[in-house]
Amino acid sequence: MAHYDCDVAVIGAGTAGISAERKARGEGAKTLLIDPYFNGTTCATVGCMPSKLLIAASDAMAAVRGAGAFGIKAEGKVDGPAVLERVRRFRDEFAGGVRASFDRLPEDVPLRGRARFTAPGELETDQGDTVSAKAVVVATGSAPAIPGPFKDFGDLILTNESIFELKDLPDSMGVIGAGAIGVELAQAMARLGVRVELYDMGHTIAGMPAETGGVLRDLLALEFNLHMGVTPEAEQVKKGVRITYEGHEAEFERLLIAAGRPPNLDGLDLEKSGMAFDEDGRPVVNPDCLQCTDVPVFMAGDVNGVRPLLHEASDEGAIAGYNAAHFPDIRRTDRKTALAITFTRPSAAIVGILPSNDNDLVTGRADFSNQGRSRVEDRAGGMIRVHADRKTGKLVGADLCLPDGEHIAHQMAWIIGLGIDAGAAKDLPFYHPTIEEGVKSAFRDLCAAIEAGVHWTTDEGSPPGV
Amino acid sequence: MAHYDCDVAVIGAGTAGISAERKARGEGAKTLLIDPYFNGTTCATVGCMPSKLLIAASDAMAAVRGAGAFGIKAEGKVDGPAVLERVRRFRDEFAGGVRASFDRLPEDVPLRGRARFTAPGELETDQGDTVSAKAVVVATGSAPAIPGPFKDFGDLILTNESIFELKDLPDSMGVIGAGAIGVELAQAMARLGVRVELYDMGHTIAGMPAETGGVLRDLLALEFNLHMGVTPEAEQVKKGVRITYEGHEAEFERLLIAAGRPPNLDGLDLEKSGMAFDEDGRPVVNPDCLQCTDVPVFMAGDVNGVRPLLHEASDEGAIAGYNAAHFPDIRRTDRKTALAITFTRPSAAIVGILPSNDNDLVTGRADFSNQGRSRVEDRAGGMIRVHADRKTGKLVGADLCLPDGEHIAHQMAWIIGLGIDAGAAKDLPFYHPTIEEGVKSAFRDLCAAIEAGVHWTTDEGSPPGV
Repeated sequence: MAHYDCDVAVIGAGTAGISAERKARGEGAKTLLIDPYFNGTTCATVGCMPSKLLIAASDAMAAVRGAGAFGIKAEGKVDGPAVLERVRRFRDEFAGGVRASFDRLPEDVPLRGRARFTAPGELETDQGDTVSAKAVVVATGSAPAIPGPFKDFGDLILTNESIFELKDLPDSMGVIGAGAIGVELAQAMARLGVRVELYDMGHTIAGMPAETGGVLRDLLALEFNLHMGVTPEAEQVKKGVRITYEGHEAEFERLLIAAGRPPNLDGLDLEKSGMAFDEDGRPVVNPDCLQCTDVPVFMAGDVNGVRPLLHEASDEGAIAGYNAAHFPDIRRTDRKTALAITFTRPSAAIVGILPSNDNDLVTGRADFSNQGRSRVEDRAGGMIRVHADRKTGKLVGADLCLPDGEHIAHQMAWIIGLGIDAGAAKDLPFYHPTIEEGVKSAFRDLCAAIEAGVHWTTDEGSPPGV
Repeated sequence: MAHYDCDVAVIGAGTAGISAERKARGEGAKTLLIDPYFNGTTCATVGCMPSKLLIAASDAMAAVRGAGAFGIKAEGKVDGPAVLERVRRFRDEFAGGVRASFDRLPEDVPLRGRARFTAPGELETDQGDTVSAKAVVVATGSAPAIPGPFKDFGDLILTNESIFELKDLPDSMGVIGAGAIGVELAQAMARLGVRVELYDMGHTIAGMPAETGGVLRDLLALEFNLHMGVTPEAEQVKKGVRITYEGHEAEFERLLIAAGRPPNLDGLDLEKSGMAFDEDGRPVVNPDCLQCTDVPVFMAGDVNGVRPLLHEASDEGAIAGYNAAHFPDIRRTDRKTALAITFTRPSAAIVGILPSNDNDLVTGRADFSNQGRSRVEDRAGGMIRVHADRKTGKLVGADLCLPDGEHIAHQMAWIIGLGIDAGAAKDLPFYHPTIEEGVKSAFRDLCAAIEAGVHWTTDEGSPPGV
């Protein structure tokens, strides 16, 4: 039980908190980084990394299954324990890298404990320590929600925090929730031979708009059943969980709950921090500077619900840490072009601004079901939509699900961020034969929609040479 | 035997010629498209498409072989005839698409025959037809060179024009030439179980600079032997060809000659066209407008040796066709950022301008042998170098060999073409966990080299969260 005075106290040693503390310290602030576990980031321990590892294994099995199309006679068998052992081995190494970075912190920076506000600028931990801070960064992350009907099923329930601890793959797995986590893990498990069915009350897949989301849904449905717009009921049965709705009934060994990851706000006693709340009781955070209303409290990373993605958490930590160190001199920033990727196959992404009632955009489309290079690689299928401002022709957004979509998503985010218009996008170099040629078709469609002409140095044939 | 008068005669119905004729006609010119075969483009028949198809099959076998690393027990067997049957089936479909486009030409446009100049603006074909044209576009492409020592080996010799006609894979194949075609086909064949060794008189791999080329060489050498800087001799033996140099001796069932594709200039009688030649006897072509010196003759596509790549041939056809139609009003254009991709695994690319004695560039590097996402997918290995102008900090070039490099190459070409500087490149959004994060490391290294600071909204941790 000790008392600490500091300039900036950071609550939570995840991606955003680590980044915030480092930035604040770099700006000359005396800092504290407070966490009950110092276990590593959500990303490394239960998020991006282990899910990508499981997906990599599922890709390997899918490749074996698909080799016949190329004239390769192949057979494969999934060794569940070996798959999961590799996932954990690499995951532990990545998480270990994060933990090792804690050892490199100056020794008076880390403070073990679970902090809560007792007054503006005053914190107390569950270890009995007290902290007075000129500014506080809240970076406590998020945790999976378990909706009421599934709360009492104990070990039968999996979340992204427990699924990677399985010693073997289940024979069957129901999935509740068609968000990014739900569809990624559903497809990966299905490819690894697990019988999978997915249920969602809504009709949105991985946060995608209806058109591209529908294309993704139809492609995923080739590998596992998706039950959209249903309200399933669950009951425990001898061998697991039974899911029922309107005549449908299925039993699963396990049930993965992927119904969102709400912010970890409980126990912070934020109401004592001096900040204001909206009518739903949520903290009011300014996304441009991450300040909570007008008090010296900043929220960074998943906890603020602005952009719950690792690369954003890293940026947000830096923004919050900088502003906490310099409070009350707050800097604001235009946030980078929004980029959200779902690592299904094909991968899906949303970039920048999509059409809505609040804007006037023109859309170009390209269908990938007959795209040249994709067919060469036996993975045709998908769609990209690119959106431009109707008045300026400036590219503002894209949504897509297509082969190697994660790279195409970066391309879109980068050129959108650099502010080019549809005509300039169409006249970028597109190598042959590539996935990018399909993207060029979308730019052409967009230019036609905004009545741009063909540049004199460009042949209008598509694909080139035809 | 007839005489034709036209505004623009295009010799050669490949990618560049098709594009040139279409553009010239679109600009109001009366056109002729002259070709002895109208068989389809180099790309579709013997180039990009069949090689990508063979590579796709080799990827499939490599995936089967590599599945064990992920916990998948797999075995595969290459069915050579089936592999090659798929290559030809898709190849024929793609080439058929090109041929179908000939049927859609206005009926007075195509002229079958092999044309040669008889005087400035005057052509004659081997069918006895004569043509008077106000301007001529030469787009006769290129063909594989067979160096002297290999000329008399008949069927034992393969080129990119004959290899895809094989009914079965050979047991063994020597490869002469470490250019893009040589290394792509060598690796593909090796992955398909063919014993492959590659020989080159020089030390350059796929046209790459020494540093990244060396990384590519070492990765390829895990799959087949590369003998660089050697002058092999060949002799026909009972079961094929024996290759020897300084104590090395190996026998192969077939020998792939990939020693360059010189322009198809023989028989054109270009000296009668009025154009000038350099001291080596090559036509002098202006790359900005594709005109040959000051006469109404333009050269487009592989034949001019400027940028022998499909997407460039398509652009060049448009440029040459436009200028031929409007002669003597010639337009010049800044060519797009140079982009050359070799579809090895990892794929390799050269983008924009590389360091040389003629410029003063700063270079940033990133090594991919321990890159996070690449390790997740068991394909770590490779390198990227990014180059900026020392004075302006502007990004001007990149060379790379790394997983999914073909997409990264597009990213580099696009942002270089859009003229951003190293600091702006580093501050683009980089999703996690992706290959692109490795590229970000290269931008960071570049910024450090040009002493750029860390932007206040950016955390300097690498990988993010550490």
